[in-house]
Amino acid sequence: MAHYVLDVNETLSDLAPIGGVLASHGAPPELARTWFASLLRDGFALSLQRRAPAFLDLARDELRAVLHGWEGSQRLEGDVESVVGEVVEAMGGLDVHPDVVPGVRALTAAGHAVSTLSNGSVLSTEGLLERAGIRDEVTAVLSVEVGPVWKPHPDAYAIAVQELRTPAAGLTMVAVHPWDLDGAATAGLSTAWLNRGGTPWPASLTEPGLTVHALTDLADGGGATSGP
Amino acid sequence: MAHYVLDVNETLSDLAPIGGVLASHGAPPELARTWFASLLRDGFALSLQRRAPAFLDLARDELRAVLHGWEGSQRLEGDVESVVGEVVEAMGGLDVHPDVVPGVRALTAAGHAVSTLSNGSVLSTEGLLERAGIRDEVTAVLSVEVGPVWKPHPDAYAIAVQELRTPAAGLTMVAVHPWDLDGAATAGLSTAWLNRGGTPWPASLTEPGLTVHALTDLADGGGATSGP
Repeated sequence: MAHYVLDVNETLSDLAPIGGVLASHGAPPELARTWFASLLRDGFALSLQRRAPAFLDLARDELRAVLHGWEGSQRLEGDVESVVGEVVEAMGGLDVHPDVVPGVRALTAAGHAVSTLSNGSVLSTEGLLERAGIRDEVTAVLSVEVGPVWKPHPDAYAIAVQELRTPAAGLTMVAVHPWDLDGAATAGLSTAWLNRGGTPWPASLTEPGLTVHALTDLADGGGATSGP
Repeated sequence: MAHYVLDVNETLSDLAPIGGVLASHGAPPELARTWFASLLRDGFALSLQRRAPAFLDLARDELRAVLHGWEGSQRLEGDVESVVGEVVEAMGGLDVHPDVVPGVRALTAAGHAVSTLSNGSVLSTEGLLERAGIRDEVTAVLSVEVGPVWKPHPDAYAIAVQELRTPAAGLTMVAVHPWDLDGAATAGLSTAWLNRGGTPWPASLTEPGLTVHALTDLADGGGATSGP
């Protein structure tokens, strides 16, 4: 039996409503991707100096910058702080992707353990799992907020090794983000890439051990392939 | 007299033509921002593991992923590899922002030294400076390509300290990116934020020593303010 460690943002949660909030203010919904990439970029930049901030604090900062840059060409409907407030509120009420509840239930029904490890807060993940009705399926809800670095710094994965009292080789990190799996592999974990969209793997990053297109493919191995 | 260390991508070079290449294939030019943020995100992710790749290699990987993600809703005109090739070619022929040539000349005319420190290659910066006709104004063209980490890891700024034989406190990092100045400050350099667009400073990052809205404001101090 394996212990699966699931990433949370985008791996479990569906960020589409964030684009909806932006669109409701006349901004392109695609800005949500730029915002999220910028948020991770600067969280990693601060982690390089062992000085990572709270996820939502940086999320607010980055959204202000992204909205400002976009406003160079067009106008936002409503003021920036209202939009920032609405996005943060939407972040607190996100739902999971359709494959998540059956996928997690299939893993635990097969006798595997499931935990989570997020760059976001424990509180935020607890809310997401409770809304989805799968909090009881999950052994431990873990976050980098206890330490000074975010994933993919090796120390972030050490949190899971320590808290779950399981050697790294006994854990399988599951994520949609290649950078997360690359970091987990460096830290000695097994890795499974949840590639819902059929995105190409970035060649500069360590390949995942396994690729699935839905979380439901993990338990039965159907549709799972080796490598990226 | 001070020694100014200038960042290169976006600080000197104008990336607007990249958006133009994307637009010529029917993709939104704003994808260039998502691409660049993703490129830095994953460069930093690999730097957390002291395994940073060549800038252009990762640039290609990230562009493929960004174009794929966008294609979910619309179609690219032409195949992805052609677009990637055109973007890389455009990267090799970029020009500098209008304030760069007069700004650099004003600094050296006032007796200051000017060098560059980039996450990109020396070759790429040399080409940019030569096309702009200011290569002779620049003391040293430095790149993180000699080491295993990108800026903003402290070791990247140590390259400038070592190569310029100047203590960190005698160098002033100049950049458009807050993360670069935050990292330079941690490494002990003075910092000047080139904020051409009036973007708000991200509160989670160490504030810059000085803010200017054009490189030409650095030499005479006109328009420069303390802090962000």
